[in-house]
Amino acid sequence: MSRPNSQDRNLRERADKVIPGGMFGHQSTRLLPDDYPQFFSRAKGARLWDADGNELLDFMCAYGPNLMGYADDAIDNAYVTRMRQGDTMTGPTGLIVDLAEQMTALVTHADWAIFCKNGGDATQIALMIARAHTGRNTVILARGAYHGAAPWCATRPVGVTPGEKANQVFCDYNDIASLEAAAAQAGDDLAAIFAAPMKHDTFTDQALPDPAYARRARDLCDAAGALLVVDDVRAGLRIARDCSWSTVGVQPDLSSWGKCFANGHPISALLGSEVARRAAGRIFTTGSFWYQAAPMAAALETLRRVRETDYLEHIEGLGERLRRGLAERAAAAGLGLRQTGPVTMPLFLFEDDPDLRQGFFWSSEMLRRGVYVHPWHNMFLCAAMTTGDIDQALDAAEGSFKALRGQLGSLGPVEKLSFLTA
Amino acid sequence: MSRPNSQDRNLRERADKVIPGGMFGHQSTRLLPDDYPQFFSRAKGARLWDADGNELLDFMCAYGPNLMGYADDAIDNAYVTRMRQGDTMTGPTGLIVDLAEQMTALVTHADWAIFCKNGGDATQIALMIARAHTGRNTVILARGAYHGAAPWCATRPVGVTPGEKANQVFCDYNDIASLEAAAAQAGDDLAAIFAAPMKHDTFTDQALPDPAYARRARDLCDAAGALLVVDDVRAGLRIARDCSWSTVGVQPDLSSWGKCFANGHPISALLGSEVARRAAGRIFTTGSFWYQAAPMAAALETLRRVRETDYLEHIEGLGERLRRGLAERAAAAGLGLRQTGPVTMPLFLFEDDPDLRQGFFWSSEMLRRGVYVHPWHNMFLCAAMTTGDIDQALDAAEGSFKALRGQLGSLGPVEKLSFLTA
Repeated sequence: MSRPNSQDRNLRERADKVIPGGMFGHQSTRLLPDDYPQFFSRAKGARLWDADGNELLDFMCAYGPNLMGYADDAIDNAYVTRMRQGDTMTGPTGLIVDLAEQMTALVTHADWAIFCKNGGDATQIALMIARAHTGRNTVILARGAYHGAAPWCATRPVGVTPGEKANQVFCDYNDIASLEAAAAQAGDDLAAIFAAPMKHDTFTDQALPDPAYARRARDLCDAAGALLVVDDVRAGLRIARDCSWSTVGVQPDLSSWGKCFANGHPISALLGSEVARRAAGRIFTTGSFWYQAAPMAAALETLRRVRETDYLEHIEGLGERLRRGLAERAAAAGLGLRQTGPVTMPLFLFEDDPDLRQGFFWSSEMLRRGVYVHPWHNMFLCAAMTTGDIDQALDAAEGSFKALRGQLGSLGPVEKLSFLTA
Repeated sequence: MSRPNSQDRNLRERADKVIPGGMFGHQSTRLLPDDYPQFFSRAKGARLWDADGNELLDFMCAYGPNLMGYADDAIDNAYVTRMRQGDTMTGPTGLIVDLAEQMTALVTHADWAIFCKNGGDATQIALMIARAHTGRNTVILARGAYHGAAPWCATRPVGVTPGEKANQVFCDYNDIASLEAAAAQAGDDLAAIFAAPMKHDTFTDQALPDPAYARRARDLCDAAGALLVVDDVRAGLRIARDCSWSTVGVQPDLSSWGKCFANGHPISALLGSEVARRAAGRIFTTGSFWYQAAPMAAALETLRRVRETDYLEHIEGLGERLRRGLAERAAAAGLGLRQTGPVTMPLFLFEDDPDLRQGFFWSSEMLRRGVYVHPWHNMFLCAAMTTGDIDQALDAAEGSFKALRGQLGSLGPVEKLSFLTA
């Protein structure tokens, strides 16, 4: 019954020799169940094939970039056509202007754009612009929020100096009193409030933004002359066809974008409003591949689909079907499943499961049934998914809940997650 | 006689509205002669076409990425074939292992690899690993050297805090006494010496590394237990089929790579030796697109050409032909032209030209004759260039030298470079 994994094992052995720890970063499977594949071979639509050819219905969507479906023909054709004419050149093409016009038209607060590669480039640039704009240094962040892996925002700051993480004050997401206390602590040095569009931290329930919290962040920035930054790298275009905080009626000064606006082709962006334009022109930021034309062509095709199709309503409908179906099946199995966050970016945690032993077991059972879910990171739906896919996931979930129910008393601790309960 | 530029003008007007300052970063033409195009439409081999369709023999090679020729069919085919099978996915493919094996086989000091997107990602990771490895903070840098646009290495640090640029000691490139003084100043806090493979700063003559300076850097690191980093992002594969300091017999612990090893497709890398492997596994670094398969496929094809063809000897031969021919023609026109750096990465500066008025005039004359040269940044040769291309450039140079000679007494100051003489 076990899935073939000899190719994956072979690649892991080779990787151990030439990649530190066998793999780096968020796509390392170090903190996933042991049977999760590290290597993949193919992807199309909503499906992945691992290195051993096992087909998987994928609810991670590459950790976000897959919005319209893997290997989407129209988007990839736009990429290839542009690439063949010249891609990374001695200067940009007119596509950079087209794309800046399109994104500022789509995103209400935005009057200008800077394009980059990593989501973390966009958040780093936002921080630099806020500091250049205000002549101040202090930034307010929510505890546990992820804004990238650069030293300033590193959540595991090994190899980072105290100076690189100085000038930061922390609050708790959606806690207005803690936000006000942070602003008071920043005093007249407040350069920016950085906000995730929702609480999408790992290992913990997600939370949608409290509109009053978002408004208070806006007001505190206005009172201090500081800039409000919404980091939409992860959630952008899965909550709104606009900055995600438009859903709670709050417009930031800066918003960072990445992952999915070219459907997985490498491009990110910082969008800004008029007030920040001058400071944005004063900082120096650049990268060898930031002017690449082909990802911009792919982004233009992706954004056309964002504007002209019901992709968002489609994934919202699928997400609701999934949430409802999972709740029913978990309840029928007598299991407490917490489903949090927007339905298009769900996170599943089991009740009374501090070291995730239930989550790990259930996720492995899902994998055996051909469905890739993540036990502690929010997931993502894509527009290539169908109601049939959701029903396949629900069938797999039903079997996996039953299997979990049967093993509930005999599950051992998850050693690799012992830090959660230490 | 003036080149058509209505498309470029039109795009600039639109860009002014939606991009801060009209363009950002190193591909902004803000500090280039006024007639230089900001926007391009096409590239093939050694040639570019600007937005108005003017053909240009391009000596910038996209500021480095173009190594084998723009829109190289075999490399781009490798990219596309892999992209159609799945590119940015929920995990990497086996290509990441193949590529790590190939790069560590090619680069003498390297035992492992981490792949990223920007050259600046690789230098940032190098710094984090050096600090994690040593438990110390101080890094020695050469004054004026470029290692990226991140806060720690920003050469125009607007929006950067003092803490982000702390723990840095500066020396002068190739000046052993200043290097020793910097090491003495770092004392027992020395984490790393960062070295460019050569002095390739802007606005100033380049300099090849003094072997004694490189050896002293190695010795000082060994004595202190610090790591030696060679930042080969810009010069890699144009000086050696190995880390560039292999040419002076010095092996670093870490080397950063980018720009050209996938011939312009977006990928960079940090390579390291065994001593740094453990620290490399302890830091957290990642990016949404770092596991992309298609740029790795393109890199594998580029590296095959690096190993199996005489691309390097070819561009060295062309570079010598260009250097010799320019020297003859400048001398014949009675002009003092300084050509510095490796012949594959030349920089041209005129004698007695502090605000670059001669360089600007000459570069504009070259542009009018269909050759794109840069007045103050090192240039790059690519393997798609031919002796015929070099002879075209030399013909253009002869006419441009004569034109400059005729105007030498009447050139006005270059206002946009007034900071050079302030």
